[in-house]
Amino acid sequence: MAEDTVGACLKKSARALAEIKRRKPLVHNITNYVVTNDTANILLHIGASPVMAHAAEEVEDMVQIAGALVLNIGTLDRQWVESMLLAGRAATARRVPVVFDPVGAGATRYRTEVSLKILEEVRPQVLRGNAAEVSVLAGMEAEVLGVDAGRTAASTGEIAARAARRFGTAAAVTGPQDAVCDGSRLFLVDNGHPMLGGLTGTGCMVTALTAAFLAVEEDAAAAAVGALVTFGLAAEKAAQKASTPASFKTALFDEVYLLAPAELISGARVEAVLL
Amino acid sequence: MAEDTVGACLKKSARALAEIKRRKPLVHNITNYVVTNDTANILLHIGASPVMAHAAEEVEDMVQIAGALVLNIGTLDRQWVESMLLAGRAATARRVPVVFDPVGAGATRYRTEVSLKILEEVRPQVLRGNAAEVSVLAGMEAEVLGVDAGRTAASTGEIAARAARRFGTAAAVTGPQDAVCDGSRLFLVDNGHPMLGGLTGTGCMVTALTAAFLAVEEDAAAAAVGALVTFGLAAEKAAQKASTPASFKTALFDEVYLLAPAELISGARVEAVLL
Amino acid sequence: MAEDTVGACLKKSARALAEIKRRKPLVHNITNYVVTNDTANILLHIGASPVMAHAAEEVEDMVQIAGALVLNIGTLDRQWVESMLLAGRAATARRVPVVFDPVGAGATRYRTEVSLKILEEVRPQVLRGNAAEVSVLAGMEAEVLGVDAGRTAASTGEIAARAARRFGTAAAVTGPQDAVCDGSRLFLVDNGHPMLGGLTGTGCMVTALTAAFLAVEEDAAAAAVGALVTFGLAAEKAAQKASTPASFKTALFDEVYLLAPAELISGARVEAVLL
Repeated sequence: MAEDTVGACLKKSARALAEIKRRKPLVHNITNYVVTNDTANILLHIGASPVMAHAAEEVEDMVQIAGALVLNIGTLDRQWVESMLLAGRAATARRVPVVFDPVGAGATRYRTEVSLKILEEVRPQVLRGNAAEVSVLAGMEAEVLGVDAGRTAASTGEIAARAARRFGTAAAVTGPQDAVCDGSRLFLVDNGHPMLGGLTGTGCMVTALTAAFLAVEEDAAAAAVGALVTFGLAAEKAAQKASTPASFKTALFDEVYLLAPAELISGARVEAVLL
Repeated sequence: MAEDTVGACLKKSARALAEIKRRKPLVHNITNYVVTNDTANILLHIGASPVMAHAAEEVEDMVQIAGALVLNIGTLDRQWVESMLLAGRAATARRVPVVFDPVGAGATRYRTEVSLKILEEVRPQVLRGNAAEVSVLAGMEAEVLGVDAGRTAASTGEIAARAARRFGTAAAVTGPQDAVCDGSRLFLVDNGHPMLGGLTGTGCMVTALTAAFLAVEEDAAAAAVGALVTFGLAAEKAAQKASTPASFKTALFDEVYLLAPAELISGARVEAVLL
Repeated sequence: MAEDTVGACLKKSARALAEIKRRKPLVHNITNYVVTNDTANILLHIGASPVMAHAAEEVEDMVQIAGALVLNIGTLDRQWVESMLLAGRAATARRVPVVFDPVGAGATRYRTEVSLKILEEVRPQVLRGNAAEVSVLAGMEAEVLGVDAGRTAASTGEIAARAARRFGTAAAVTGPQDAVCDGSRLFLVDNGHPMLGGLTGTGCMVTALTAAFLAVEEDAAAAAVGALVTFGLAAEKAAQKASTPASFKTALFDEVYLLAPAELISGARVEAVLL
């Protein structure tokens, strides 16, 4: 049965990738200024249409015409948080799906508090973070060191399962093994490559890709798995072409562009765990 | 006569490109945070000197030492708009030429209103936008989908001509065929490559290059044509080297750097339409 | 004796580079939005862990867990300056070393005044700027043209020596020849390549690398020399691979990643001047 669960999920993921390329959904990003250019480009490369807009005067208008919304607190401040809440509430009201990336939650109290507020007031479809960030938010033991590093007691699978239950959302938790849980199913994803750790914003890129998938696929877990497998496979292929980080980055972006829906099924290394 | 018009324009454009490399004009940018790095680099590659400054405390001082000013509302908010107006008015008072890029006008009311306000209060030398954005501002039928996509009823030539009349400025409207009109002459530019559509900020880059040309060339149409041909030719050459978007981006930037003034004349695919 | 001084310095610099790779220090950046992505990536490539955070609500918390703090005013505004002062004072109180980059000081009064205020209130361990910027701050004759260009009467060595005395900090002044002075020693660094001038933010990158070195090495001059030699050597190697700016940028980042501590000693072109 676990195999069937994986197969059904990947079928949806692959169909969604084809749909992204066909429909070019608009993805509205309120994200950090470290990754804006990379985020916009990777969304274009996968076939989506990115827009960045953060002014309180317009976020509610912008999110109405979007297929999905990304909220990412990587370089938050008070005004941006206000805009995230405005946009997030408008998205929820209009049934525009939301992906939330709690970058650096646990590193400062402010990031933890803002993350919990967004989770409570916006109720995103997907919470996408690294193991330490999501652990802290889910009330599990963890140490967060900045935005890229941390230590957790639990596995990504345990963290995703706990976060999904606690927040009533799908949780996509990245680490050496990625995990996606929507409360009823838990997927473990082994695609990816260690070289991703040598680039800034790779987590943020997966978050943005998850939003592109969510714009065309209602099954939040299948969307998150689709984004993780797509990005992980592209990284694996890029690592065959480049062994230094800047060359790898160029290859990574090119491979995201090249990845065909069928490869998503043939290349996936995903297993399902029954809860 | 149309041929003479084109020849005279391209001669000015090519001379301006040589002048940029000789004089390295300072281009002051108040632009969006998606493209700041790309904008700064492409300005350096063509030979100009970029500066980004948006604080109300200094924009009037900064624009005084600049050869041209870029106003780009891609990620506007209230404070940035205030600074754009301050800088724009100071530029006009000091006869520093201004290029305005109304990114996403029509996508939200806020962007439309701000754009019309900047056009009215600053009176830029060049309005540089895509077909849907400029259509909306000129009161023509259009649908704006985010910042990269849209549909218009009219051709870029018609849109540029209308906008030039309406705002008393040169209008550079980009699309499959680019159009530049200064009220008396209409130029249609066929340089470029579809791969530009797979990168974020290519319109913004043309806007910045237009400012570099304007810093050394009084004929606004010749400046805009020069930027479009330079960027379009670089894209054509880059597309011969790379067929994937990230590799294409690297090649594009390299080709902008390599493009010699004489190539601008020999490679241009420009025609003039008498109004 | 001058040779001994250089040898002792480079030994510390090389050991520091090894320590960065071993300890992966967290570097907290409050920097400009032109270079955030490049800064974060180059810090990762050298082995450090970057974080960008500018909210008044969290900068004091963030700097507490950091190994060093970067303050860079490239795209300053009032709120960011307030956060820089908050973070800078907290860093000083906690003995977290600070590198300050006065981008564009002298180009506008605002930048000059803010720079002098940060120097006085934060007392950074290293002041890292180009010749014209540091000249202006040190009260020497100079003309600042934007953020990349300028003219000075004095050599970088004279400027660094004057600034070190005036501000009681180590000063790292970049130009055709780089100079580092801590008040008692003056080092002149000839590594580097003219192609660095064709990329935006190369000064900002050196500033960030200096912070990574400072996080693991108490001798501020050795930290600054280490960063300058590392970046300069990487540029020299990159220039052997690429002769166009965008390809050079990719190679530069790759070479920063590849540079081994021993190369820092063997490749350095550094001399010491006794004061």
